[in-house]
Amino acid sequence: MTLDLRLRTATPADYDRIAAVADDWWGRPVSHALPRLFLDHFHATSAVAEAGDELAGFLIGFLSPSLPDAAYIHFVGVHPARRGAGLARVLYERFFALAAADGRTVVRAVTAPVNAPSIAFHTALGFTVTAPIPGYDGPGDVKVRFERPLG
Amino acid sequence: MTLDLRLRTATPADYDRIAAVADDWWGRPVSHALPRLFLDHFHATSAVAEAGDELAGFLIGFLSPSLPDAAYIHFVGVHPARRGAGLARVLYERFFALAAADGRTVVRAVTAPVNAPSIAFHTALGFTVTAPIPGYDGPGDVKVRFERPLG
Repeated sequence: MTLDLRLRTATPADYDRIAAVADDWWGRPVSHALPRLFLDHFHATSAVAEAGDELAGFLIGFLSPSLPDAAYIHFVGVHPARRGAGLARVLYERFFALAAADGRTVVRAVTAPVNAPSIAFHTALGFTVTAPIPGYDGPGDVKVRFERPLG
Repeated sequence: MTLDLRLRTATPADYDRIAAVADDWWGRPVSHALPRLFLDHFHATSAVAEAGDELAGFLIGFLSPSLPDAAYIHFVGVHPARRGAGLARVLYERFFALAAADGRTVVRAVTAPVNAPSIAFHTALGFTVTAPIPGYDGPGDVKVRFERPLG
């Protein structure tokens, strides 16, 4: 496994590679939450990390069209064999810089309350976390929301 | 049932009403495809139709941040008792005008190949429709893509 990583802006063509590994990387079905539209229309603010030809990680985020102060991170994944090495943090910091450069002052994300590693990670990165919000993504769904000031 | 309709720009607060009816209006589970982020971040280009206090229909669409020529329609619903009266067409025409005013030259959408009413509707509105595309929204998924020039 090469340790060299290349980080670059995503393209629409990255969708198929990401969709092919998402369920495996998460260990549960998640690809329903990642339709192609996210790469087609938000690739310019999303990023892919590659080690040679292998996908090492990715971040899908966008600058909110309707909330001029906000940026939103929808999906971030790191290859299971590459976790714990700071790659997710690098992807987040890259997105923070990109959003701040556009004048955004807050970045938000959500996760399921049971996703303790995600909550710990976001807290370490300076995000606040809400109590679980019932009905967040529709009836029966529960999420916590993350928020972090920028700049 | 009142026939008076009011059409207005959506707000983030419309999410809960839309999520509450989506599965019923579609007759199958669809709310997983409609997370809150779509109203939080695309409400300014989305619309709600109301008849008194009742939700009559909605359109969720956005101007692509990464593709400067493109607009995208993600979800459109009309109350089952109000179908066939042209409301969906009104919602689409409103979005076309909004997108064209921003300089967008093409509008896109997708649906499942089995959704014959959606394919007929989009064709009548001037969209072209592709052959079914395997793996469109991830492994095992199949979609057709609609496209219509603007202006």
